Parts: sequence; structure tokens; C-alpha cells
Amino acid sequence: MTTERILEGLARREPAALARAITLVENQRDGFEQVLSHAHGLLGRGGTRRVGITGPPGAGKSTLTEALIQRLRTQRLSVGVVAVDPTSPFTGGALLGDRIRMESVSLDPGVFIRSMATRGAQGGLAITTEEVADLLEAFGFERVLVETVGVGQTELDIARTAETTALVLVPESGDGIQALKAGVMEIADIYVVNKSDRPGADKFRQEVEVMLGIRRGNAFRHVSPHHAARPRADSGTGGRADRAGPPSDGPTVRPSDPWEPPVLATVATTGVGVDELAAALDRHYAYLQASGKLAERRRQRLAARTRAVLERKLRRWLLEATRVEELLALRLDEVADGRRSPYDVAAEILDQVKAGGGATR
Amino acid sequence: MTTERILEGLARREPAALARAITLVENQRDGFEQVLSHAHGLLGRGGTRRVGITGPPGAGKSTLTEALIQRLRTQRLSVGVVAVDPTSPFTGGALLGDRIRMESVSLDPGVFIRSMATRGAQGGLAITTEEVADLLEAFGFERVLVETVGVGQTELDIARTAETTALVLVPESGDGIQALKAGVMEIADIYVVNKSDRPGADKFRQEVEVMLGIRRGNAFRHVSPHHAARPRADSGTGGRADRAGPPSDGPTVRPSDPWEPPVLATVATTGVGVDELAAALDRHYAYLQASGKLAERRRQRLAARTRAVLERKLRRWLLEATRVEELLALRLDEVADGRRSPYDVAAEILDQVKAGGGATR
Repeated sequence: MTTERILEGLARREPAALARAITLVENQRDGFEQVLSHAHGLLGRGGTRRVGITGPPGAGKSTLTEALIQRLRTQRLSVGVVAVDPTSPFTGGALLGDRIRMESVSLDPGVFIRSMATRGAQGGLAITTEEVADLLEAFGFERVLVETVGVGQTELDIARTAETTALVLVPESGDGIQALKAGVMEIADIYVVNKSDRPGADKFRQEVEVMLGIRRGNAFRHVSPHHAARPRADSGTGGRADRAGPPSDGPTVRPSDPWEPPVLATVATTGVGVDELAAALDRHYAYLQASGKLAERRRQRLAARTRAVLERKLRRWLLEATRVEELLALRLDEVADGRRSPYDVAAEILDQVKAGGGATR
Repeated sequence: MTTERILEGLARREPAALARAITLVENQRDGFEQVLSHAHGLLGRGGTRRVGITGPPGAGKSTLTEALIQRLRTQRLSVGVVAVDPTSPFTGGALLGDRIRMESVSLDPGVFIRSMATRGAQGGLAITTEEVADLLEAFGFERVLVETVGVGQTELDIARTAETTALVLVPESGDGIQALKAGVMEIADIYVVNKSDRPGADKFRQEVEVMLGIRRGNAFRHVSPHHAARPRADSGTGGRADRAGPPSDGPTVRPSDPWEPPVLATVATTGVGVDELAAALDRHYAYLQASGKLAERRRQRLAARTRAVLERKLRRWLLEATRVEELLALRLDEVADGRRSPYDVAAEILDQVKAGGGATR
């Protein structure tokens, strides 16, 4: 399918064209930036909200995402999902089979689910995810969910491309709680304790709240750009399902109010707590709007994106159009036996690029 | 301290100069590549071996590393340690306090321990870690240990800069075992079940062995460049302490033998199993030598490093010496309101670079 054909198909809102566009972007094939550039012009018009859902393996993120999709569908909101597994270079995509579990929603034409095989997209996974989310938004989905597995830096970078980040834990999240202790998880706007019908779930949720409280009071704490937290924990749950719905029906948020990440309890398999999660997502979006952070963050993300796109273009140009590999092959023996260092060789190549790399095209 | 002074100090093997050199490299300050280029010329001469130790938070990696250092010191081997916490951009370095626990060895002049604050070194953490390891090797340490927290892609990239990678788990590694199931952990050459005196440890170790066996037989398995595994598990433990020592005293390894990652049981706090770990490290090194993989991997790492250094240099040059930020500031309004896309703007800037970016210096 040509780029032209994909663009035409997208204009006609054909799911097959969307699928092709995503594959094009994932593989960075010819024309992918043209498609993305086109999509960029369609962003920010339909009030699409992006939600990142992350957490350790086994926390039930897929099931929770599925339950959330069902909830959003009762509001007739269309939902695009991109599921990313940063570990898949190592698994060859074996985990992706899990996504098939979202079968209750996979045939709904108002829902589009895409798993991303990462194929070792070195350093570029977060930007590629954001680009796929752009395609989903440009296509017209009113909610775009970005689901990613893990609690490391890569996963958090991915989750941070969304406007609201939810972190899903389970009572037995041993490593998860360690990461929480370490402050890794301060990045989230909403915390979810899933499988909360298990023994010890209440205690675990209290521990999470206490840790967030402690972390907030800690002199070493990292003030996340995602929230300005006050030095106390806020359970933020219970009886708020009635606040679900678009922000205009939601609670009043004063611009000066800081966001206090709630710790919610869910049982994704039975749907318990999913209304509260949807309500918390609405509250957070209302907060972002009222505080002016929505526009501010969007601008920051666009500046960061432009830098990242430029770096990627430059790297591709450098590796494809200049004689880098040739020079590298010539010099590798000298590097391997210590006569020259990687720094000398890199400097030599850079000098050639500066002196007129364009001429080597 | 000037670069000249640092180089002189390194030549005289002053630990203070080493510490300064590491700081220089960590922060990529002026002269850091000069120091690294110098260090490069000193590599591969003293038979230094690099060992990566990774695993989920709370697995006891620091304690195990400390016990391993004590073991190596009984052989009078000097040991340099670089401890990296990829999550520290979020913690502000709070976890680094844990390293202080290595107090039994921290005053030993044959041991040098350095914690790396990562300061959000975007995408470059693995290369910076490898560069710090270079400094330790060039300084003359006979063993360089790279300890990192986590089981995500970033952590594995870091661990893979070493010749041998050990993955440390504990019986309660819930998330760890999930990652193992997902094949994330196939990357390791040696598996360690630490805290193996806890209830359920034997069962857990057997599970790990079975999983490795299953994974090896799985059609979707990723064949790690770190080992060529056969489709069966090998416990590889027990009664091998006598095999410790330099490879010349070690077991005979036939070049054609594949490496079968052992699953060892340790109790780092009491030293149980540490001899076996040291022996397994020796066996793996002997295997790398006999199979020719040591030289092969070194060459691959140097090629990858040269590419990475070049990309970093180019990015720095681009961001510092060209008018990227200026152009970006000029265009950001147009990008934010959708008139132009990040792709258009990046293409415009790249065109300027190609047309003679050097001239903007």
C-alpha cells in the first residue's frame, strides 16, 4: 500500500489503512514521516485524551484495560489502544499473545487495539509509541490508551507520553513495592491496586499510601513534572463513581489545587473499582485543564518530540547516507588492537560530516 | 583538576585521579573523551574480566557483590565496582545510600567502589557505564563488577556491556519470575537464587531451571548472543568450589561445548554459595576464551561503542554548535498550533546541517 493510498484510506477512516499506517511507522519505512506529518495537523481537535497504563508483569493490566474500555464504551467513547512490551526484543513477541485476552472488545468497531512489537527499537521506543498514539488520535479515537509492561525507565518514558499515567500494582507486587520505595513510581498520577479481593490487599493499599506520603515528605524526593504533590497521602477513593463523565459534568477544580495521586482498589476481572478509575481519569483531566498544565505539557512534549525526530533523522542520515559504516569497517582493526580509540575514529567521521557530509549522498 | 592533571594522576595510579576521571566521564565535561581515548589504549592488557550483576530490587545484589569481592580478595585480585541505578533520575539518588553497606570492603585499597548517579542520561546510560568500566580496567583492576538494579531493557543493556552476566533472584521475586517467564532473563550467563535459606527456595530454584528449560525448547525463544543454550536445563551447582581460581587451574572447556547457564543457590549474608559463584564465573570466562567468543564479542562491543560515541558526538555538536534550539524556539508556536509538524521542522533543520552545519559554529 503506497503512502498516498494510506493517506486516502485514513481520510476515509478505514481501519485497514490505520493498521498499515501503524506498521509503516513502527518499521520507519519510506513515507512514515509524511503520514505522521499529516496526522500531526489533525491532532488536538477532537478532545482526545491519552492515558498511560503501566505496572509490573502479572498485575492484570490487560484485564484492567479491557474493563476500562468496556466502561468507556458505555459512554459511547471510541477507544484506541497501543500495547507496548519493551521486553519483547528478548521474547520475540511471545507475550503479545496475552493481548488476545481482550476478546470482549476486540470485535467492537469503536475499539482498535494494536500490540507493538518493539524489535529492539534502540532508544526510540517512547517516540515510536507516541507516534502510534498520534495516528490513533488523528484517526478520531476519543480515548487513546497506552499500555506498557514494567516499571523501569523505558516503561516510564513510554507512559509519560500520555497526559495521565496510571500505575497498576497487585498485593503480591514484591518488586513493585521495592520500586515504589525507591521512588520509581512517583511518576504516576493515579495508583491502582488491582486484584484487591486478595488477602492482604487492604494492608498493601495502605502501605502504598503511606509510602507515597513518606516519599512526599522526603527531602530527596523527585518532584515529577506530572504532578505537584503535597506532603501527605490522599486515599482519593470511594463513592466517586458519580463524578464520571466529561469534565463539564465533573467536579470543580480550582486552578491552584495541586494534584494528589489517589490510590484506588480494583478487581479487574469483576469490574469492581473500574468506575472509580474512570472517574479519577476524568478528575485528572479536569485538573490538567483547569491548571493550564494540559497546554503547557503539550507544548513541552512537542518541543521534545521535534528534538527527538531531528536526532532520529540525523542518525538515519548519518548511518545511511554518509560513509560511516565504511569508515568504521576500515578502522575497526585499529580500534580492536588499541592503536586507535573509538573517540578518535568518531571524531574523524564527525569531521568529515561537518566538512560537507551532504556531499557524500 | 585539569585533564592533564587527571591523566598524570591516572598514570601514577592515584585513586583521587580515578574518582575525578569518573566524574568527568559521568558528566561528559570538557576533556572526557581525551581521558577515555587514553584509557582505551590501556585496555585488554591485564586480563581484566568484567562481570555484570543485575536483578530486581531487594534481591540482595549489593550484599552478594560484597561477598563476591571478599572472595576475590582472598585470591588477591583487585576489584573495581560500578553500581548503577537506572531509576535514580526519579529518586534523586536516594538508593545510593545502600552502597554504604559494602563497608567490609570499602576501606580496602585493593577495592574501588563507585556509585553512578544517572541524572537522566537519556539513552546513554549503558555507554557511560561501559566507559566508567573502561576507566577501572585501565587503572588496573583485575575484576570489574557492574552492578545494576532492575530487569528491564535499560538494565539488560547495561549488564550486557560485561563479558559475563549474572542475574540475581530471590524466592519471593514475584515480578522477577514473571520476567523470567517472559524470557526477559534469558540474557544471563549465570542465574543466582539468593536468600536460598528461605522457605520455598529449593522449589523456586527448580522452577527457574524448568523455566529455562522450557524457554530453551520454545519456538519463540530469543537466542541470546550471550550464550548458545541447549534445550535442557542444567543445575550446574554443587561441589565445584574446587574449580575456583584462574582459568589455567580451571576445568577443561572444549571449544565446541555450548554454555549452559547454571542456576546457583546463595545466601549472601553468610557467604553460602559464593565460592560456587566465583567458580561459575571462572568457568564462563574459560568458555568464552576457548570458544573464541571473548575476542568476537570484544570486537562487536567496540564497533557498537564507536557507533554510539559517534552518535553522541553528533548529537552534542548538533545541539550545541548548530542553531537547533534557536530554530526550534522560532518554530514551536507553529508546531503547537498545528501549522507545521515536528517532521517539517526537523527536516528544515537537517537540511541546514547538511548544507554546511559546520559553518554555524
